[in-house]
Amino acid sequence: MGSLADFQNEIYLQGLGDVLPALPTDLTRLEALAERRMSAQAFGYVAGSAGSEATARANRAAFDRWRIVPRMLRDVAERDLSVEVLGTTMPAPILLAPIGVQSIVHPEGELATARAAAATGLTKVLSTAASYSLEDVAAAAGDGGRWYQLYWPKDRELAVSFLERAKAAGYTALVVTLDTFTLAWRPRDLDQAYLPFLRGIGVANYFSDPVFQKAVGGPVTDANRDMALLHWVANFGNPSLTWDDLAFLREHWDGPIALKGIQHPDDARRAVDAGMDGVIVSNHGGRQVDGAVASLDALPAVADAVGDRATVLFDSGVRTGSDVLKALALGAKAVLVARPYAYGLALGGEAGVRHVLRCLQADLELTMALAGLTRPDEANLDLLVRDH
Amino acid sequence: MGSLADFQNEIYLQGLGDVLPALPTDLTRLEALAERRMSAQAFGYVAGSAGSEATARANRAAFDRWRIVPRMLRDVAERDLSVEVLGTTMPAPILLAPIGVQSIVHPEGELATARAAAATGLTKVLSTAASYSLEDVAAAAGDGGRWYQLYWPKDRELAVSFLERAKAAGYTALVVTLDTFTLAWRPRDLDQAYLPFLRGIGVANYFSDPVFQKAVGGPVTDANRDMALLHWVANFGNPSLTWDDLAFLREHWDGPIALKGIQHPDDARRAVDAGMDGVIVSNHGGRQVDGAVASLDALPAVADAVGDRATVLFDSGVRTGSDVLKALALGAKAVLVARPYAYGLALGGEAGVRHVLRCLQADLELTMALAGLTRPDEANLDLLVRDH
Amino acid sequence: MGSLADFQNEIYLQGLGDVLPALPTDLTRLEALAERRMSAQAFGYVAGSAGSEATARANRAAFDRWRIVPRMLRDVAERDLSVEVLGTTMPAPILLAPIGVQSIVHPEGELATARAAAATGLTKVLSTAASYSLEDVAAAAGDGGRWYQLYWPKDRELAVSFLERAKAAGYTALVVTLDTFTLAWRPRDLDQAYLPFLRGIGVANYFSDPVFQKAVGGPVTDANRDMALLHWVANFGNPSLTWDDLAFLREHWDGPIALKGIQHPDDARRAVDAGMDGVIVSNHGGRQVDGAVASLDALPAVADAVGDRATVLFDSGVRTGSDVLKALALGAKAVLVARPYAYGLALGGEAGVRHVLRCLQADLELTMALAGLTRPDEANLDLLVRDH
Amino acid sequence: MGSLADFQNEIYLQGLGDVLPALPTDLTRLEALAERRMSAQAFGYVAGSAGSEATARANRAAFDRWRIVPRMLRDVAERDLSVEVLGTTMPAPILLAPIGVQSIVHPEGELATARAAAATGLTKVLSTAASYSLEDVAAAAGDGGRWYQLYWPKDRELAVSFLERAKAAGYTALVVTLDTFTLAWRPRDLDQAYLPFLRGIGVANYFSDPVFQKAVGGPVTDANRDMALLHWVANFGNPSLTWDDLAFLREHWDGPIALKGIQHPDDARRAVDAGMDGVIVSNHGGRQVDGAVASLDALPAVADAVGDRATVLFDSGVRTGSDVLKALALGAKAVLVARPYAYGLALGGEAGVRHVLRCLQADLELTMALAGLTRPDEANLDLLVRDH
Repeated sequence: MGSLADFQNEIYLQGLGDVLPALPTDLTRLEALAERRMSAQAFGYVAGSAGSEATARANRAAFDRWRIVPRMLRDVAERDLSVEVLGTTMPAPILLAPIGVQSIVHPEGELATARAAAATGLTKVLSTAASYSLEDVAAAAGDGGRWYQLYWPKDRELAVSFLERAKAAGYTALVVTLDTFTLAWRPRDLDQAYLPFLRGIGVANYFSDPVFQKAVGGPVTDANRDMALLHWVANFGNPSLTWDDLAFLREHWDGPIALKGIQHPDDARRAVDAGMDGVIVSNHGGRQVDGAVASLDALPAVADAVGDRATVLFDSGVRTGSDVLKALALGAKAVLVARPYAYGLALGGEAGVRHVLRCLQADLELTMALAGLTRPDEANLDLLVRDH
Repeated sequence: MGSLADFQNEIYLQGLGDVLPALPTDLTRLEALAERRMSAQAFGYVAGSAGSEATARANRAAFDRWRIVPRMLRDVAERDLSVEVLGTTMPAPILLAPIGVQSIVHPEGELATARAAAATGLTKVLSTAASYSLEDVAAAAGDGGRWYQLYWPKDRELAVSFLERAKAAGYTALVVTLDTFTLAWRPRDLDQAYLPFLRGIGVANYFSDPVFQKAVGGPVTDANRDMALLHWVANFGNPSLTWDDLAFLREHWDGPIALKGIQHPDDARRAVDAGMDGVIVSNHGGRQVDGAVASLDALPAVADAVGDRATVLFDSGVRTGSDVLKALALGAKAVLVARPYAYGLALGGEAGVRHVLRCLQADLELTMALAGLTRPDEANLDLLVRDH
Repeated sequence: MGSLADFQNEIYLQGLGDVLPALPTDLTRLEALAERRMSAQAFGYVAGSAGSEATARANRAAFDRWRIVPRMLRDVAERDLSVEVLGTTMPAPILLAPIGVQSIVHPEGELATARAAAATGLTKVLSTAASYSLEDVAAAAGDGGRWYQLYWPKDRELAVSFLERAKAAGYTALVVTLDTFTLAWRPRDLDQAYLPFLRGIGVANYFSDPVFQKAVGGPVTDANRDMALLHWVANFGNPSLTWDDLAFLREHWDGPIALKGIQHPDDARRAVDAGMDGVIVSNHGGRQVDGAVASLDALPAVADAVGDRATVLFDSGVRTGSDVLKALALGAKAVLVARPYAYGLALGGEAGVRHVLRCLQADLELTMALAGLTRPDEANLDLLVRDH
Repeated sequence: MGSLADFQNEIYLQGLGDVLPALPTDLTRLEALAERRMSAQAFGYVAGSAGSEATARANRAAFDRWRIVPRMLRDVAERDLSVEVLGTTMPAPILLAPIGVQSIVHPEGELATARAAAATGLTKVLSTAASYSLEDVAAAAGDGGRWYQLYWPKDRELAVSFLERAKAAGYTALVVTLDTFTLAWRPRDLDQAYLPFLRGIGVANYFSDPVFQKAVGGPVTDANRDMALLHWVANFGNPSLTWDDLAFLREHWDGPIALKGIQHPDDARRAVDAGMDGVIVSNHGGRQVDGAVASLDALPAVADAVGDRATVLFDSGVRTGSDVLKALALGAKAVLVARPYAYGLALGGEAGVRHVLRCLQADLELTMALAGLTRPDEANLDLLVRDH
């Protein structure tokens, strides 16, 4: 197996033939470029956050408060960044976070993303709100790692149908998003009065579902389309769920389950007590509660509360290899990355996503090695100091 | 009763017909737009603060230091944001703070504001320095909640007259502003040598008052107008008031009284000891003491000092639902919002104010629900962590 | 005696006749305006600081870390801001700091400044490096308070001559600047290779001095001018001074003496032990040691070390009434203001300086009253909270 | 010996003849000027850092958190900034850090730098990756202090050859860079696909080496040049080194050895235990681990761990005399400066480097004197307070 950092040499060698990377290698620069390429509505939907977007800013600022103290002379010639997370082996502790409605970003949407993920061996978490059905995306993904993210609908029969379809299509782990039973106050979307779902985007998994179809009187056609959308609105999120409902999930999914959106250690404890296999510390990239705690600031207490009893993953704000390493050191087994690959998708389709993933992997491997680490599980609090 | 957050769906549905909101839904963006619409004098008066405007900046920065930790799976399907504050029931813990001279913002001034408040059911606190008389505004407000704010004049007979008129016009609670017995050093106004009162704006409640008229020899006409203005200048504020004077107030107002401008816990204690029903933690939006403590930073100690003995309200810096929720968690029963609705008034008259109030209510309800709360009284310090 | 805040009403009343203040009333805005009016060399000299100018920025930032907690209902109708400092009574706790070479700012230089100070009753501290002789400035100052600032030259006989001349001209207190025995690395001046003294500006007190003249063979003419300048260079500062040398000063000046440039409590203690009457906490406005502690941050420990044994004054960074009040609360008896009046001088000559002084006095009186204070000696640490 | 600060007077005196310094005297301004003069590739290589460049920003920000408290009346007429470091006497505690490939900055590269260093008496640390061979640079340096920096290659025989050549050419101390066995993820270079070494720049010490030549079949010509570059790639860095390998170094170099790149106190202890004479606290100017601790923040703990057992030097972020003084106070015996002289080289060749060195020396001497110090060893923690 080659090093994940081979991408670095590849770029420099291509430079000798005057070939430059098609996209920036500093992933924090992609957003500004993507803004020029995307429609105002699509960009607003992807880049926007809740309210005054204070949470999104806090997510980024939190990384700057933790500083890595590199260690020297540790023989880091042999590196192995692979990890096994909830039964899936991946070449680096990085997953593609679930992002819905990717066809507003690029016509090939989740299909392109799945192919790019498969090419790097990284695991993609498919959103219930995908533009393409979970079966189509599974087919595109080939051998790539495949997890399914559930927006738990009000209709329990529909939820069960989603889980059964996901299992049948080879999705091995289940991510249940808790923090989005309703959409937040998102000014960028509101100012454009733009909600993709109401325009029929991101409902593929619903419209293609037999339970959903039964509820709207058969396959969705022009005739029942408006009714189907209203049914979607009524069923998308379930605000009345409680911890007791997790037993239902456990009953209908025999693979590993991770709860996404955990920010308080007590919620993490309850998740483990309810038999969940993992929690994902996340504030949905700042898209739900304006003024929420930075996700990285929430991580240490959650990791401490969970201990060895379950797997802790991290999401919200990751842009660089250094970010990944800090999250690992603060207790995450792996991280989920989101907007950067959406911008890669906008800027270059499948190749753009692949570029983003290869940059992030190479950056992580180099940063780890230069900090004196050869494997993700070597990262712990000893690696960090708090800045101020 | 519909949800306060229905406004969100309303906007998205209108978008399907290509109808966009007339004003931004991120209220922090209104000021820049209003600046283009308002006269330089009016904008300077509303947007300006004392001195170097450090207090106004501190007010906003303080919110960022407290972060909400959302809780999951709490069944938030049924939400009720209504509260009873000093005898008035309101659909959300939000009041319209007293702002004077609103006719410099929009010709219909306080009348438009009162109508918008009534349309949302929120309570408006009418300023003594209103452009329209308290009777006219009461008539415009219809059934809306109605409180009266007193600038306590030097002439005690005039003060009593104000209170009696307010009572007669159906104002149910009294807000006494302590921090503005004289105007601060306000460079934006000074640079324009602009004080609306000297130009006859914001003196309606005085000129229409029988006690005031008696003092200036009858109704104010061109003949005695200059004298009337001088009399206003001499009587507007009373810098010699002390805690002992509160007994006088108590004697002449039998409804609830709240003191506005409290920033020190000892002052809060004295207010309660003097029989006041409430205190409003406020630094007048940074318009009085440059370099003063951020109002939100002053809130916890005041709330602690008051405990259950009186009602604590909060004012100065509120712009988003997240801001409201943080103030509730730090001990406020409700908040007062000011400049945002003034900008709404400038940009859209009554409809603009209504837009601002509906945005803020919807944002608050969604933020609360997504944080795991269904009622304002569930917010307490457990909801927050301090950022740094 | 009228209130210092009368200036506020004066401005608003003039506004009724469409007369606006000639200069901004927010003194932090003067620098940008002055830059357009002054020569690049003069502006660089006045606005510039040492090195990367980090100290100047720190001076300003330090004020923001202390926040005033206003108190209510304290009867502040009668205010008296006057103080007696080192034997001089002044209407407000504000002095004009010594600034040399003011003729590069405005042709009338220190004469205009002295007249403006006299008009407000404030005390001006005349710099040894003034553009006009101390006798000429004394004549211009009329009845205004008058202190003399000494740059202690190498030639002791010359130092004694300065002191005797100052005494004869009616200067009542002596300020000895310790922190400028040599000029710092000041990039703005160095980039322009501009040192006013070498061009014969700011040497009036030297060239007019009998001891100096004796040393250069008589009155300075074209013939011995270069030699005189070289003699000035050789004598301006004395880097070998120690605490023991203060006895010499004490011996030759029987009025009060204050040491300027004290930043460490141990130095303050030594000053008091050496019989000094006062210390001025100052970092020369950031013009000497780049990266030095903010002057306001140095104040509390110095005030604590000095206690009641001597007078503590404050200098470096004052721009607003709030700044003055914070310095008083942290232990200063009065403050010195510098650059703002230099910019006032640049922009409006004597009237410009007067404008600056009146703004600062009015702002201070209003800020104090609104914070609940009627006299400077009521300000203490109870007035403040630390921000972060 | 003249004062290092004589440069100040020299500049002012030349100004009388209208001669201005060719380059800015605030060294923080050089980068922006250099950007306009250098090729995009060269500027990206020199100015760029790892990843999001967070470490480079942290390096600068760290200086601002420590503030100097100047002391007065300490007789600082006689100053002596000279120090002896690892057997070399230098006029000020400032060394020229090793920078490779200087010919991309200026055609004369390291030769010009060596001449400028020699002119000031300061010691230059020559990089293994220099554009010119260590023998050529030694010849250019004349009597200037001369240290050799080793990038420890995989081929041990080659390493020994480098050490023997350095010894023969009069390099007296050895600096071994630990933190760059592989290059970090550097977006500015990657975006331009630019690595100077692959274009034959910075390999002079390799191509001219008999051991290297033997490995590639003789002197490097057009015929074996590609093979030589591949051999360079394969040998440049050695990621498998451990603390045990230091014995090998010790065996082949009998002069003093300092390890560069130490950031953790435990690594510093191991260095001393391994018989090293010094450590250089450095994060390679932020060029290796993105998100690493600011070098200045790492210094105190390292200095404390080392104590008197070895020499502690500091590198990464020094731009002003104040920066140097703070590093001394926090435990460094001397500092290394890097990018500023590279920009001086870009802007003015040898004269540009000399300008930078003279500015920094003069600034340091003045800052020290004004802070009350006459010798570098007087600087310690008593000189500083922490800002926040």
